[in-house]
Order: sequence, then structure tokens, then C-alpha cells
Amino acid sequence: MKNDILLKAAAGAKVDRPAVWLMRQAGRVLPGYRKLRESVKDFTQLVKTPELACEATLEPVHTLGVDAAIIFSDILVVPEAMGLPYRMIENKGPWFENTIDSAKDIDNLKDGTGADWDYVLKAIRLVKKELNDQVPLIGFAGSPFTIFAYITEGTGSKTFSVAKRMLFSEPAMAHRLLQKITRTTIEYLKNQVREGADIIQIFDSWGGVLGYDTYNEFSLQYIAAICDELNKLVPVIVFPKGAFFAGAELNKLNCRAVSLDWTVNPEEARRVLKGKTLQGNLDPCMLYAGKKAITDAVNRMCDRFGKQSYIANLGHGLYPDTPADNVKYFVDAVKEYSR
Amino acid sequence: MKNDILLKAAAGAKVDRPAVWLMRQAGRVLPGYRKLRESVKDFTQLVKTPELACEATLEPVHTLGVDAAIIFSDILVVPEAMGLPYRMIENKGPWFENTIDSAKDIDNLKDGTGADWDYVLKAIRLVKKELNDQVPLIGFAGSPFTIFAYITEGTGSKTFSVAKRMLFSEPAMAHRLLQKITRTTIEYLKNQVREGADIIQIFDSWGGVLGYDTYNEFSLQYIAAICDELNKLVPVIVFPKGAFFAGAELNKLNCRAVSLDWTVNPEEARRVLKGKTLQGNLDPCMLYAGKKAITDAVNRMCDRFGKQSYIANLGHGLYPDTPADNVKYFVDAVKEYSR
Repeated sequence: MKNDILLKAAAGAKVDRPAVWLMRQAGRVLPGYRKLRESVKDFTQLVKTPELACEATLEPVHTLGVDAAIIFSDILVVPEAMGLPYRMIENKGPWFENTIDSAKDIDNLKDGTGADWDYVLKAIRLVKKELNDQVPLIGFAGSPFTIFAYITEGTGSKTFSVAKRMLFSEPAMAHRLLQKITRTTIEYLKNQVREGADIIQIFDSWGGVLGYDTYNEFSLQYIAAICDELNKLVPVIVFPKGAFFAGAELNKLNCRAVSLDWTVNPEEARRVLKGKTLQGNLDPCMLYAGKKAITDAVNRMCDRFGKQSYIANLGHGLYPDTPADNVKYFVDAVKEYSR
Repeated sequence: MKNDILLKAAAGAKVDRPAVWLMRQAGRVLPGYRKLRESVKDFTQLVKTPELACEATLEPVHTLGVDAAIIFSDILVVPEAMGLPYRMIENKGPWFENTIDSAKDIDNLKDGTGADWDYVLKAIRLVKKELNDQVPLIGFAGSPFTIFAYITEGTGSKTFSVAKRMLFSEPAMAHRLLQKITRTTIEYLKNQVREGADIIQIFDSWGGVLGYDTYNEFSLQYIAAICDELNKLVPVIVFPKGAFFAGAELNKLNCRAVSLDWTVNPEEARRVLKGKTLQGNLDPCMLYAGKKAITDAVNRMCDRFGKQSYIANLGHGLYPDTPADNVKYFVDAVKEYSR
């Protein structure tokens, strides 16, 4: 690998500067992606066409100079493969025609065996060939609870009260669904690794709607099951958005790195997550500010996390209206950081 | 005051059981309210008609047996009084026709002097008369940042990226707007106290979208300014939803109580918020479960917070589809708690 600084940082090996990439670096703000997006009828067509997904994956490596590519895809590939097709509605988010609300619905879901996610695996093969070991490739999946939240609710939600209603009123049924999603996700990620993914990130986008006494039961234990299977193959990064309240439990995960949102204080994270590489956590809205403000914020962030066992990133995905120049300032500021 | 257990709990005086009320107890799930709501064209008409607001305020005192009334109103009364009318769109939330995005917009806003919030004050007078010192009356306002978020964004948002763009790209302008909202809010709350509000709650519903290094600057300092003026008149409860990451700073607030969402661990809250009365924090989705599950959850919560200096409540407002019977189970379980 020509540039293996991300893998070194994940492993806790000594590096000269923090590694850097951005969540949503592929498929949001870059001009090449915008042209790609205009050339097709919808987002899912990009996800399902390996040549286009490959192009979207590579653009940020070339134009931003990030230390890793992340496969252009979507966390909802997993429920789709389980038999729940969805549409991505512009400016709204995902929408499932059928949702899960009974034991029979759960029985009807396919699991990993024979699931159709070949288009993702083909995109990974193309990317690996094009990348030619320039930088590592990040594979990913949603956490089981995050997928559960979408397929019970049917769409995004401020409260996910439909999803949570099932947790609290039908806990045994909820666990059965979470187990099925977990098995499928493990199979999916193993396939990604087999095709060449060098490192895996698990996005627990919605675990933060749970609480201090329910997060462990309904989200973390299933993330732990995935980590136990995957972290022996490649390093695993877990992103528990909005769930740092579970800090001490997160530290017990069999993963190499924890990604933090911007509400987390770096010193506190270092204290609680001893031995983990930390990733994050600039507020994506900071990229609306000017060049100097961005550089200052990056320097302050790197000072606080420290250069070792650290991957500079945002605290969430890039927002769609972020100026592309500012994204480049962010990456450059990290690469120039040397304190 | 016939039942002053809430005021005693807020003051840290000895009580025989935890005090109890629920955020959104007035104006969501009770049958009387639903009839009231059907009798008018929209939510704001209820807010602006003192006799109807009074009726909605009193219903939960009579039917649920809670230890306090909270005036039926809306946090957006303040921006409305500053010259920004809004509509409450069913199942969507508030919507402002005009938003604030320039220095001139800020200049054009009225401040507290001559603001039209008389309908709220009249409702408070009616309620105080009807209550006849049965239980205390809670007055309230949104935090300045929460109001700022709505009037810059124009509506609710998952990210409040428009609001945060102003914070990070035009911080001086943002502070000028926050100051103007703060002055107006202090005036508004002083008026509520003058008419008889016995205790005040400040709802920082959206401060949690800020981060560990921006919350203090853009939200907490303005809440502190309100506390400094109000807590010498009546006890103040601050509800920093999703912002417990600022725990140590919250503890410095000149307020009597801090209300916690369900992501906060009770033992951790007692450790960090020494000397404060704590309020909260059952996940509102627990009220979808059965009677036994609710009672168990209430007992566990009261065990963990302890009976003294504690006000049992939800970790957020009641969700609209909560069964009214389950709300009653919640209140009864607290009142029967005696460990």
C-alpha cells in the first residue's frame, strides 16, 4: 500500500500526521459526483451500477487527496437484499413501501444466504483494481438497530417512536429481527472483505435515540457481535452517533477505532476510550465558515486528540450544501498539521 | 399551597415521595384536549384564547393528579411577539413565513418592550384563579438558542444547518440576535412570574445540535443570563435536551433544577450535577408498553435517582400517540413509590 497512514493510525502504529478522510466524501458535494448524479434517474441507480459507484468512490481520492476511499454505496443495501426494496426521495431520505411489524414479516425476510448484493461486490472489485493500492478501501454497513429503525419506521424520523414502540412492547420479536439483521450484516461485511475492503466502518446512525439503559440491549450487543466476527479479519471502526453516553461499554467492543460526533469532548473521549484509535469529530457546519476558521478548528481538534491513534474526520457526514473548496481546506489543514 | 411537593423537591426540602408531572401533559393525549382541539381551526388559536388555554392547562391536574400545572402555551410566543408570526402545521411542526438572515432583519425585530403576549398573561391569571393554590403553576420559555434555531431555519430541522451556518460564518451577528432574544425572554418570564407562575422551566430543545466547544458560547451563556435574573424570583428548571455533554458547565447555572433526557444515566447525573434537583427522565416510548413494564421502569428510575431532590418526569414531551391510560399509570406509579 503506497499510503497506509489510515491503517497505521487504526492499528495505533506511529505516524507523522493524523490520517484523514470524510464521511460522505463520495457522493455529495464534489462536481464530478454532481454530474454523475444528473446522468441517472435516481441515487439508487448509482449505487446499483458498479462502474458509476466506482467513479464516485475514486473522485475524492483524486481531487481531495484523502487517505482512504470509501465504497460509494448505502447502508440500506442490506434490508434491500433481505427483500425490502426502498426508494431514496430527493431532500427527504429513504422510503420503504413495506415495513416490518409482525412476526410473519420477520419470517418472510431473507437472510444473508443468496442475498443480492453482487453489485456492491463488483463495485469493490473495480475500485480495488483502479486504486492499485494507492490508499486503503473502507467497506461499511449500518448497525443492526439503525437498519431495524428504518425498516420498522419505513423512513427517517425525529423520534423513531414506531421502531421504539416495538422494542418496548414486543422485545422478544424485536430481538429476533435484530438477530436476523445481524447475521445478514456479518455475511455482507465478510463478502466486502473477501473482495478487498481493507477496513470496515459500522454506522450506528440512530442508536442515539435509545437511552443509557436500552442502548446496550438493543444496539450495542449486535454491534459487538459484528465486531467479534469482523475485527479478526480487518480493523473495524464503530461510529455510535449520539451515543457517547455508552462510553464505558463502547470501550469493551472488539474494534480498533471509535468514531465520535462533535458533541464529544476529545479529552473525555481519550479518558473513556483507552486503547482505541479515535476518529472525528469536527462539526460539519464548521465547513460553512472561511478558510482561516476551518484551519484554526482543525488545528485545535488535532491538538486535543493528539497526532497518534487518531483519524481526522467530521463528526457526521458532509452536508450537501458544503462548498467543495472548504472540504479541500479541511483535508489540507490536517495534512499540514505537524505539532 | 395545598400540594407543594414540586416546590419542596425543587428547593431540596425533605419529601415523602418524588414529585411528578409530565412535559406536554397539557395539549397532547388527553380526551378533553382533543375535543378542545377539534373545536378550533388550529393549535395557535388555542394558545391565543385564554379561556381555552386555561381549560387545557387544568385538565391534567384533574384527570392525572399531577403535582403541578404547566401553562398551555408555546415557546414560539416569544418570536411571534418580536414580529415573526408562525403557523403550526399539523404533523409537521412550526413554520415561519419570514426568517432572519441579515443584520437588518435583526434590527427590525421588536424586543420585549410593548410585545404582545398579553393572551398568555391573561391565561395565567385565569389558571391561578381556578387552581386556587391546589398545585403550583409552571411558566416556561424556550432557550435563546432554540428560538434562534427556529427563526433562522424557519422550521424544524434534523441538522439545523442553516442556523449553525450563521453561528460559524457570522458569529458577531448571531450573538446580537441571541442577545435580543435573551432580553425579550427575560422580560417575558418576569411577566409570567408577576401574574403568578410559581416556578419556571427553560426548554433548550435544540442546544444539543451544538457541540462540546460551541454549546457554551451559543446556548449556555444565554440560559445563564436568564437564570441569573429569574432564579432570584422563583425556582428555575433548565432542560438541556441532548446536551448533557456540557454537564460540568450546567452545574454552574444559577438554577434550582436540571431536567434530563433518557440518554442520561441517573448515577452519572447525580455525580456531575451536585446540589441540583434532578428531573426526568423516562423514555416517552416506554409509555407504549404495558402497565407492569411502566411500573417497573418507574420504580427502577426512582431507585436510581433517589426520592429526595427529584422530580419524576419523562425525558422529553409526551408523544401524541401515547395511550392516555398509560400516562395515568406513570403518574400513579410515582405516587405509590415509597422505597
